[in-house]
Amino acid sequence: MSKRQLQVGIIQSSMSDSPIDNLDKAIEGINGLAKRGAECIVLPELFLTKYFCQSEDTKFFNLSEEVPGKTTKIFEKIAKDNDISIVLSLFEKVKTGLYFNTVAFISSDGYQGKYRKTHIPDDPNFYEKFYFAPGDLGINCYETKGFNIAPLICWDQWFPEAARIGALKGANILIYPTAIGWHPNEKATHGEKQFLAWQTIQRSHAIANGCYVVVANRVGHENFAGDGIEFWGQSFAVNPYGEIIAKAGPKQDEHLLCEINLDVIEEFRHGWPFFRDRRVDLYSDIAKLHLD
Amino acid sequence: MSKRQLQVGIIQSSMSDSPIDNLDKAIEGINGLAKRGAECIVLPELFLTKYFCQSEDTKFFNLSEEVPGKTTKIFEKIAKDNDISIVLSLFEKVKTGLYFNTVAFISSDGYQGKYRKTHIPDDPNFYEKFYFAPGDLGINCYETKGFNIAPLICWDQWFPEAARIGALKGANILIYPTAIGWHPNEKATHGEKQFLAWQTIQRSHAIANGCYVVVANRVGHENFAGDGIEFWGQSFAVNPYGEIIAKAGPKQDEHLLCEINLDVIEEFRHGWPFFRDRRVDLYSDIAKLHLD
Repeated sequence: MSKRQLQVGIIQSSMSDSPIDNLDKAIEGINGLAKRGAECIVLPELFLTKYFCQSEDTKFFNLSEEVPGKTTKIFEKIAKDNDISIVLSLFEKVKTGLYFNTVAFISSDGYQGKYRKTHIPDDPNFYEKFYFAPGDLGINCYETKGFNIAPLICWDQWFPEAARIGALKGANILIYPTAIGWHPNEKATHGEKQFLAWQTIQRSHAIANGCYVVVANRVGHENFAGDGIEFWGQSFAVNPYGEIIAKAGPKQDEHLLCEINLDVIEEFRHGWPFFRDRRVDLYSDIAKLHLD
Repeated sequence: MSKRQLQVGIIQSSMSDSPIDNLDKAIEGINGLAKRGAECIVLPELFLTKYFCQSEDTKFFNLSEEVPGKTTKIFEKIAKDNDISIVLSLFEKVKTGLYFNTVAFISSDGYQGKYRKTHIPDDPNFYEKFYFAPGDLGINCYETKGFNIAPLICWDQWFPEAARIGALKGANILIYPTAIGWHPNEKATHGEKQFLAWQTIQRSHAIANGCYVVVANRVGHENFAGDGIEFWGQSFAVNPYGEIIAKAGPKQDEHLLCEINLDVIEEFRHGWPFFRDRRVDLYSDIAKLHLD
């Protein structure tokens, strides 16, 4: 009988100014989680650096690299040594003047392919549209140990369309490397409701699609401009019912383990067969920016 | 300055075997809520009868009526007398052999149009595919006092696509007349998670679309077949952050009032401009049943 459970590891961490230190910390985290049984591990968005998108500065283009390239090579060895897969968020350079916010999917057989962030934010202190072109590869699944994983990235979290396409392509798990936090001056009035909205919409992707959702956020206060961003941590995983099966706190580095269970997906989708009843004959309107 | 707030009334009720009694109770509820300031009132799904879809029996086709027709006429007068609008769920007969699960939207100026349930369930004790053809009118908004309302119905709740189309057409409010409950034999093991999944996905529609969501459910235990259905009540309304601003209990008839505030919608959509970043160039995949 084929494997029905997969152990997924989530690394929540803060970042230092040193890419080497961040790399070492990520590797240490992965090796630790693999020893605890993790078979697929996700790192936060752009884990090699602080979140430089807080300002628009051309010097940060120098942080970019080719994908696949030097960093994927390092993690290919780690994936092979541990017999695991890794969801690896990188700042991808295609050529001077064209960059993407990219995830490389690496299995124990090596680099499998990449996903380029589809939805790009531009908000005070989150100036991603300056750095990244909108992803041009669509949304796809990667297979590991019989499980299908659709990597998505942060701002994609707010768009039910992205989750749906991942699920239609066969995802059992939607995985979101993330860098989200509070503007310190809004935290008192809006902090709790912003966090809950973020958690709620991702729980809903699990429900709408009868799949698991896994989120790895960064944590810590980073100051590039103004008051900076207080990354809110609270990485989590939910089952198809939207129930939280793992959750980190808001302040510290944490490594979580959670179990993906195909039997739970089957029970949910048999009980609530949403895929059967979608009215695809009426959905062409979705591909419009507005209809009013 | 144009009106920025709208008071919405939600009627949660049980139904008896007598359509006349159910009609009288609905009218009484509407008049009471209008006196308390409600300007738009929603009744539960198919409020004129018990939830006959628990069994497949051709005799129930006799419960259907034309829309507009005798019942809309009654509520047109009530809407005019109270200067309110009403979201009215009816079993629509088009002709012998063709029926829809329909909402009539009635304002103080009379019948404005109808919505036919897009997504039709078929689950033990919810045999709606036997009675209703899938809606053929698409998803549309109706205007009342400067607010745009997209009526949707029950099972539509599980489909982010339906909510999105309503919002793209300009909805400030998505309103769902509903008849959802527990199979008594599942309640102990799955009752809480089913209710929370249902609430969560609707909260997420508010978040994804920066709008309000309003739900009117029926309540009470109805036995047409087997153990019947225990309708779980808990009608509610949420603001764009997905915060619950009104909620009924699980057991009793209740009439709720909630305030829709365009300033809250504006604050939310300015802070999180999701509509700006939708990748409509990539969404044609949504109009497929599967992609794997």
